Amino acid sequence: MTTLLTTRDIGAIVGAKGLGACLDTLVNYLEEDFARWGEFDKSARVANHSKDGVIELMPISDARLYSFKYVNGHPKNTRAGLPTVMAFGLLADVDTGRPELLSELTLTTAMRTAATSVMVARRLARADSRVMALIGNGAQSEFQAIAFHHLLGIRELRLYDTDAAATDKLERNLAHLRLPGLSVVRCASTAAAASGADIITTATADKRNATILTPELIMPGMHLNAVGGDCPGKTELHPDILRRPDARVVVEFEPQSRIEGEIQQMGAGFAVTELAAVLAGGARARLSDRDVTIFDSVGFALEDFSALRYLLRIHRAERGAHPQIDLLPDLEDPKDLFALLTPRARPATARAGVAA
Amino acid sequence: MTTLLTTRDIGAIVGAKGLGACLDTLVNYLEEDFARWGEFDKSARVANHSKDGVIELMPISDARLYSFKYVNGHPKNTRAGLPTVMAFGLLADVDTGRPELLSELTLTTAMRTAATSVMVARRLARADSRVMALIGNGAQSEFQAIAFHHLLGIRELRLYDTDAAATDKLERNLAHLRLPGLSVVRCASTAAAASGADIITTATADKRNATILTPELIMPGMHLNAVGGDCPGKTELHPDILRRPDARVVVEFEPQSRIEGEIQQMGAGFAVTELAAVLAGGARARLSDRDVTIFDSVGFALEDFSALRYLLRIHRAERGAHPQIDLLPDLEDPKDLFALLTPRARPATARAGVAA
Repeated sequence: MTTLLTTRDIGAIVGAKGLGACLDTLVNYLEEDFARWGEFDKSARVANHSKDGVIELMPISDARLYSFKYVNGHPKNTRAGLPTVMAFGLLADVDTGRPELLSELTLTTAMRTAATSVMVARRLARADSRVMALIGNGAQSEFQAIAFHHLLGIRELRLYDTDAAATDKLERNLAHLRLPGLSVVRCASTAAAASGADIITTATADKRNATILTPELIMPGMHLNAVGGDCPGKTELHPDILRRPDARVVVEFEPQSRIEGEIQQMGAGFAVTELAAVLAGGARARLSDRDVTIFDSVGFALEDFSALRYLLRIHRAERGAHPQIDLLPDLEDPKDLFALLTPRARPATARAGVAA
Repeated sequence: MTTLLTTRDIGAIVGAKGLGACLDTLVNYLEEDFARWGEFDKSARVANHSKDGVIELMPISDARLYSFKYVNGHPKNTRAGLPTVMAFGLLADVDTGRPELLSELTLTTAMRTAATSVMVARRLARADSRVMALIGNGAQSEFQAIAFHHLLGIRELRLYDTDAAATDKLERNLAHLRLPGLSVVRCASTAAAASGADIITTATADKRNATILTPELIMPGMHLNAVGGDCPGKTELHPDILRRPDARVVVEFEPQSRIEGEIQQMGAGFAVTELAAVLAGGARARLSDRDVTIFDSVGFALEDFSALRYLLRIHRAERGAHPQIDLLPDLEDPKDLFALLTPRARPATARAGVAA
């Protein structure tokens, strides 16, 4: 039997522990896994593109565990009442291929994305960063806001979205939380939101080269956390921002980011630094307080691996609390799959638990 | 909500309809889909290899539906009481990325593999084929036996496996079915089983270049249905069989088969014909009754797509009979994912059904 964590289960787990605490622990899991970057069997995700969206599979494994995520990206979905991004995934045992945990990953993706953003900003942003512009106030925005406030000390959030209702929703959700010491400023444009910001986070959803940030908005010393551009043809930064002589670009997994990231706009020789090298301390992205640092985030399979590892630990700590599904056969004789079709085998398949 | 078809559900469905009838319908679904081969977004599967096995993801899509399969291959699993191959997969809506159906695919893979074998043998084997050798009597063997008896008119099955207990099990399962007009002959070696056969099906599981069939066993006019070799380093045929001047090799999706099939033993220029071209009638594999035809089967994503399409139709015909799981969020406001973490939103997540 495979453990199933539904959206309701994850909502209940995070609701009980608190989002800030979950993000904090997630950062630890991410740091542990990125520290052993060389141990993973990595590949760029596999994308099936259609007119209005994309569906992707993101596998990764080390010697012990395998994970993959299914995730879509359909910006038009919100008009039909569906989220832009929906995801689920799996953690399996490498030795046998047996799935241990099947989990929703929509909420979890929002959390791991924000946790990754903070993990990176701790190395790239100026230590005295207190003001963050948040451009794009959709499903991801609360997670970014809370992560940067709780784990990086952001005191002022400057909000902008072309959809005023999205900003209404983000403001309402943040007001509801009454986060001590956080001021939220609603802005009339991207330029107004960026003005005075130490960090600019872009989390927009349009599937096109959207140029959310233009060169004149970027001041020396800023850190750009570019979360929304993550598909061929879907970018947020004007290429002249990437070309600044004082700019340093950090990516997750270079072969994937060359296809999907902001750097798809640049030549193959454009210099980038992989995140793992920054975390290991061998590479520095920020050399001075006047450098512009850019995290060209697209989302990499290892982040989901870390999140699933965390969920598995939570599940084990709450043993028995979550449903099991028989997605896989439970066989008396492992070579007798056919037994599942014959009446005499029925009682065996109805048993709970796998003989493992 | 996403519909879940468990192993027990599929066992019950197939048990009620009869395996022969299911295989027959599956062949129709396969023929429909292979006939529109050009409409699919195809890629070689993504494999994560480890010491004892492999875990693979197999995505494919057309303009309307997307499917993928998760499948492992761990020959040593049977020693630990687990199947060599375990699989599950998903059918999703391309327009929104929303998963419609999550299903076990272990039983289903066994069925679609046998149905594909028969679909191909109908074009490649001699029309008067009545005797089939079945080398490898594990989990796949009953499905091959029943498919070829029921849908191709095989009257004599000649069995061999290095594991006598596997042959015991296959004999017992076939005896239990009392298939009219089928005689089952247990053989002492691969050579004995192959002797007099019109078709040789190999469905072995060793993860190495195993040379199950050697050149002297192959007689003019034979059709080889080589099912077991499906990984880099995992083949069943001696390369001299492929080199015979009278041999014609048919593969599913050439880019994947070059990596995984029997033809991994040959140079990149070795001539093969894609199955879709044979089905469309543009290419002929068998030119005379003395040709040796070889189906170098590795299993391609389209076969799972067809099987999932069939399962979705069955589910819709039995509306409401199968469980739904909330693998994805059900949101009042699709941009308000955060609402799932706040108590006021709980009633919404507890509702059944998605506002779609």
